[in-house]
Amino acid sequence: MTSVFDAATAVTRADGTDHGRWDAELTDGWLIGGGLNGGYLLATVARAVREALPGKPDPLAISAHYLSASRPGPATVDVRVLRQGGTVATAAADLVQDGVARISALATYGDLARLASGADDLHGSATPPELPPQEECVPSVVSDALGLAAASLLHRFEMRFHPDDVGWAVGSPNRSGLLRAWFRLEDDRAPDPLSLLLVLDALPPVTFTFGAMGWAPTIELTAHVRALPAPGWLRVTHASRTMAGGLFEEDCEVWDSAGRLVAQSRQLARMPRPTA
Amino acid sequence: MTSVFDAATAVTRADGTDHGRWDAELTDGWLIGGGLNGGYLLATVARAVREALPGKPDPLAISAHYLSASRPGPATVDVRVLRQGGTVATAAADLVQDGVARISALATYGDLARLASGADDLHGSATPPELPPQEECVPSVVSDALGLAAASLLHRFEMRFHPDDVGWAVGSPNRSGLLRAWFRLEDDRAPDPLSLLLVLDALPPVTFTFGAMGWAPTIELTAHVRALPAPGWLRVTHASRTMAGGLFEEDCEVWDSAGRLVAQSRQLARMPRPTA
Repeated sequence: MTSVFDAATAVTRADGTDHGRWDAELTDGWLIGGGLNGGYLLATVARAVREALPGKPDPLAISAHYLSASRPGPATVDVRVLRQGGTVATAAADLVQDGVARISALATYGDLARLASGADDLHGSATPPELPPQEECVPSVVSDALGLAAASLLHRFEMRFHPDDVGWAVGSPNRSGLLRAWFRLEDDRAPDPLSLLLVLDALPPVTFTFGAMGWAPTIELTAHVRALPAPGWLRVTHASRTMAGGLFEEDCEVWDSAGRLVAQSRQLARMPRPTA
Repeated sequence: MTSVFDAATAVTRADGTDHGRWDAELTDGWLIGGGLNGGYLLATVARAVREALPGKPDPLAISAHYLSASRPGPATVDVRVLRQGGTVATAAADLVQDGVARISALATYGDLARLASGADDLHGSATPPELPPQEECVPSVVSDALGLAAASLLHRFEMRFHPDDVGWAVGSPNRSGLLRAWFRLEDDRAPDPLSLLLVLDALPPVTFTFGAMGWAPTIELTAHVRALPAPGWLRVTHASRTMAGGLFEEDCEVWDSAGRLVAQSRQLARMPRPTA
């Protein structure tokens, strides 16, 4: 039984091109704030890159610049392999709809199962966020706060927020620049390196904690998948330290059920416009 | 009088291509650990992109994947404009030597002077590193520690390290995962958005603080230039929280003399191989 995530990010090889081209069908199940979620798009691009790089299944580093808003419907992912090395390979990938570029990405892939020897785990000062048990955390506040009950994205996964981080949902933002939440995909789909790319851009923008409740368009997002995730709930943090000149950086970390940092990202995004 | 940095990163428009191509001459003044410094290469690429994007002089976000080691000598930078918007523009750029790709980059540029209204500086919890006055900091320890007196890169700028961070220079690494230093270019060349790209990859790898004293090849580096820097000494931090599977992330922040965060980067790099 194919999960909703796997079906929505599926790609099929297109014929008749001199490089690699994959067809995708972007579904309306991942809409938020008038557009398709950037993490969903990144996972779709990443699946095509995986197809183009046999033996190197995992996105160690993928950098995406967002050029225009994607819409539900057909899309192609054009992949050019730039380097095939012994342990890593690099490709450029472009998500295109009706001749219009949506996302350009560069990606370096490897095999996390081969990397994860642990022999040189010199250092790990990063610790997972402190979160109360799931039943003490706050579900489903995003749709209520935004009047987004119809946003299809919010049905794709469960988020349960740290109670200290969601004052914005009741009009009392705490101005912390920090969001912490439990996360899991619908239909018990276990996390893997592709779904982690979605997770890295699934929580609401950290600007919510300042009461800026709108959509925050991503300019650039780079993700590093650091380890194969264990099954179970993930813990996710969004943090920002500098909001200036109309832009902010958002750092996301994802921790698996074993307490390991499995993915991290930084994005540069535009501050949300105040909603009228 | 052209500074050494500006001369070394100069590019000239090449004729006869259907897109944008610039010629560069990579000089032997930026050698370290057997290769040319990645920040120097990134600044050279960024200068060509600037030429291709009139009216948008500043790299807001530039993502570079490092494909092979560059060598002193001629190089070309091929630039394809992907989007020209009102406030930002995006281009893809490839640094090539003798037909071999060295770096592939995606870059989104804008005009920091126009962005820096300050009106929406909602948040700034980031604070500059605490550093003793320059005369109490430690100069020139890198070359002594590595036997790299001949590494030309180390003559291109001054670094003065926090005394607490350089135990590795005398065989006593403190295992902190943190390096802090003052920084300025030679010949009083004031910092600007292009030189900040060099600064983001100029300090030794943070793995030095674990006594891992070798060269740490960059796989991917993304830089965000956040503000136009004030003249004077810069403060720079390198930090890493997770070294696993032979890879580590290195976060760099650069602060100007006015105490403002002007640039930040994250790179994914390979752990240095133990030197025999």
